Amino acid sequence: MSQNRSVEIIEVAPRDGLQNEKVMVSAADKIALVERSVAAGFRHVEAVSFANPKRVPQMADAEAVMEGLVGRHPGLNLIGLALNARGAERAVAARCTQINYVVVASETFANRNQNASVADLVAGTKEVAAIARAAGLPMSVSIATAFGCPFDGEVPVERVMAIVETLLASDPFDIGFADTIGCAVPPQVTEMLARAQALSRTVKWRCHFHDTRNTGVANAIAAVMAGVDFLDASTGGVGGCPFAPAATGNVATEDLLYTFDRMGIATGLDIATVIDTARWLSGVLGKPVPSALLRAGLFPARAA
Amino acid sequence: MSQNRSVEIIEVAPRDGLQNEKVMVSAADKIALVERSVAAGFRHVEAVSFANPKRVPQMADAEAVMEGLVGRHPGLNLIGLALNARGAERAVAARCTQINYVVVASETFANRNQNASVADLVAGTKEVAAIARAAGLPMSVSIATAFGCPFDGEVPVERVMAIVETLLASDPFDIGFADTIGCAVPPQVTEMLARAQALSRTVKWRCHFHDTRNTGVANAIAAVMAGVDFLDASTGGVGGCPFAPAATGNVATEDLLYTFDRMGIATGLDIATVIDTARWLSGVLGKPVPSALLRAGLFPARAA
Repeated sequence: MSQNRSVEIIEVAPRDGLQNEKVMVSAADKIALVERSVAAGFRHVEAVSFANPKRVPQMADAEAVMEGLVGRHPGLNLIGLALNARGAERAVAARCTQINYVVVASETFANRNQNASVADLVAGTKEVAAIARAAGLPMSVSIATAFGCPFDGEVPVERVMAIVETLLASDPFDIGFADTIGCAVPPQVTEMLARAQALSRTVKWRCHFHDTRNTGVANAIAAVMAGVDFLDASTGGVGGCPFAPAATGNVATEDLLYTFDRMGIATGLDIATVIDTARWLSGVLGKPVPSALLRAGLFPARAA
Repeated sequence: MSQNRSVEIIEVAPRDGLQNEKVMVSAADKIALVERSVAAGFRHVEAVSFANPKRVPQMADAEAVMEGLVGRHPGLNLIGLALNARGAERAVAARCTQINYVVVASETFANRNQNASVADLVAGTKEVAAIARAAGLPMSVSIATAFGCPFDGEVPVERVMAIVETLLASDPFDIGFADTIGCAVPPQVTEMLARAQALSRTVKWRCHFHDTRNTGVANAIAAVMAGVDFLDASTGGVGGCPFAPAATGNVATEDLLYTFDRMGIATGLDIATVIDTARWLSGVLGKPVPSALLRAGLFPARAA
């Protein structure tokens, strides 16, 4: 049943997973979450967000989190999210090893998330790219609401491709398609990636799925089958977006790993360690997390 | 994006959905659940189970439920589940229009679910088939633990196919592959259906997925792509099995409909009505139900 495929999963629980929680997670626990992810085999972690602390107070300690991580895990890519040039400068100063800049594909969400127009956000890529280049860092760009917007509804794939074409001029390391509100279905993913791949053979492609409408695993499979390079996922399935109503968490890392492991899709990650981390994270947050695998356990059951 | 495909969904919430609930749902509410399903467009409903009332007390009022339904919904297929010949006789007496007999693919589960061996259950198909034939009713057969057993672990596809070959001798209307503990992944589904279809071109094929490990939607898509005739699903995602540890509900009907509607897979069902029913059922049960669509709402949002 092996698919002879592999995919690199980026652990985003420390950033996307925690940014919408009511509980303020300590920097020490955020650092522990990254360290547990390293132990599970992750080589890429979105560790922090350099958002405005007044708007996203859960991420106000980004510099302190980075301070506890920098230089301690050789080979670990510590990605910092930036919503603008100011965020990118903070990411460089905090010694992130990659900057993930966010643009948006729909006007109302662009306004609510970053208080800017789609055109301004896309144009801002050049400035962020210059900051990253000057620091010798790769820049990735995430396109939020790429599959649909909670306010504007359908987002035509042509509009997303037009954004991709502009982004490519800034020579990003990867471009990610974010299903911010978990509305995508697999054929959309297949089409998005096919059209994107036709625009560049050098840039890496990434998808970021939320499981809001129970399509996260199916979309992730479709992305792998379409040859996606990276998938974002969140241990425990924690997360959501402060500016997207009814958004739920990213697809749970361990739920993806269960399916991928059983399908023979290689990730290099240890699912049992990720499930342990989900259990620990549930304790930190003081509530159940959405993870199906934490609740159900592995199949076949492993000896304890 | 249309797939030019269609699938017939069988609503199983009245049976599989309620058999494991702590709350005893009244016959009137069970009847109302079926009637709401008819209003949503369903033509096939697994309405009742003729299990031993001492072992599955939630289904003890099967005859009363059927009494409230028989003859009131022209064209509606009222399926009754039978675990043995006694159950099949009760289904006939209660005027079910189809009997769904259950066999099991793994020994330990066969023993716990029906206190019999796999061989005895498979052999019992002949007796149930004779009862159905004498009453002029179609018989379907569900193969439980077809993708894995909570006690015995892996279930080889060859063993399932050997069971299928024996069942075919009884000329069933359909044969269903049940992922009783929600452990299947899509390539298993694809392989199971391809091998089954090679054994008979006349019997209909059905799949029954639980969402225990977040693979229900992906498996259902794989089944449709492989040309499955019927899918079981449960409004609200309610359900579980009294004899399978950590089993959760069937994949939610409305979660399947969201994906299928967006993919252009025709079902003839109205998702908004199903979501309304899930909300009502949550009230009847006095607790949240697993449905993602009930929580998240449709995309794009519909005018109220």
